[in-house]
Amino acid sequence: MQHFIFNPEHDKHMLRIIGIDPGSRRTGYGIIDAQGDRLTYVASGIVRVTDGALPARLKIIYDAVSQIIEQYRPEHMGIEDIFSARDPRAALKLGQARGAAIVAGVNVDLVVGEYAARSVKQAVVGHGAADKAQVQAMVTQLLKLNATPAEDAADALAVAICHAHSVRLQVALSGSGSQRYGRGRHS
Amino acid sequence: MQHFIFNPEHDKHMLRIIGIDPGSRRTGYGIIDAQGDRLTYVASGIVRVTDGALPARLKIIYDAVSQIIEQYRPEHMGIEDIFSARDPRAALKLGQARGAAIVAGVNVDLVVGEYAARSVKQAVVGHGAADKAQVQAMVTQLLKLNATPAEDAADALAVAICHAHSVRLQVALSGSGSQRYGRGRHS
Repeated sequence: MQHFIFNPEHDKHMLRIIGIDPGSRRTGYGIIDAQGDRLTYVASGIVRVTDGALPARLKIIYDAVSQIIEQYRPEHMGIEDIFSARDPRAALKLGQARGAAIVAGVNVDLVVGEYAARSVKQAVVGHGAADKAQVQAMVTQLLKLNATPAEDAADALAVAICHAHSVRLQVALSGSGSQRYGRGRHS
Repeated sequence: MQHFIFNPEHDKHMLRIIGIDPGSRRTGYGIIDAQGDRLTYVASGIVRVTDGALPARLKIIYDAVSQIIEQYRPEHMGIEDIFSARDPRAALKLGQARGAAIVAGVNVDLVVGEYAARSVKQAVVGHGAADKAQVQAMVTQLLKLNATPAEDAADALAVAICHAHSVRLQVALSGSGSQRYGRGRHS
């Protein structure tokens, strides 16, 4: 499911996207610029949450993501959609962390797109069953990085790339964008 | 677990508390003033979340709770702690809604206390296995209301009452407060 507002202008103009890989202990973020089919790395990193009471932990995530958004001023957010979790308690923890990150985005009116892990892997590696190392390698290659980002940061950059593809696909389907766009594959 | 900052002055001074009963479709809220063992009803209601994409739904919860906090200016928040859920998907949804409500609180530096449903029922009805109707009846009686609040609003008022008791218990244990305080019971 994608929930962004369609705007054909995005094909020509630069769109800055923050990708988020939510987690209760580590939340990865990755920022890219997308202009047509050109993707440029901006920044990435990991928000680490220290031990403590849940409200304080959620505040760390919310404050950190809000600050990153304020610094880099992305217009869109891509975030991994989670369909499964080990058990209800783990799902609850993950949900709270994910909620805090999403609220940081919608609070400043970012367009937020949600993508299943399978779709992210499909967009970046070319098939939905790719492992974490393959995602890291492809993100490094696609964004022409000199070093491989850490797992959570790579996953966040991957979801940002997936969102960029999704926006381009909307543009292509509308007939106003590039026709070279290939489904789920970086061209 | 309670995560508030201990302050013996709370026994003498009025403490305004917002209670939250989080839910992905309906989030109940209830505001009370606590002064020593005197509890006064201030307001209560339900934030209803319409159908739509998750980010928009979380924004409704976050914005509504933020607005209620801005209007009534509570200093503390009590929120139900959830240990169990039907399944991981339900837990994830509930977690996200709960995360959005908590972030609305910590974002303006409210002290947030979390209470298991059992503790809330214990504090309001006197035993942890009370049903929803008993909670509604006791909240109505304790706060001297003319009408019974709706279920979610009553649950929110109950968690606010539980938080008030918890703060008073801390005061009593510290030796500076009233010695008439009874554990888990409104005196």
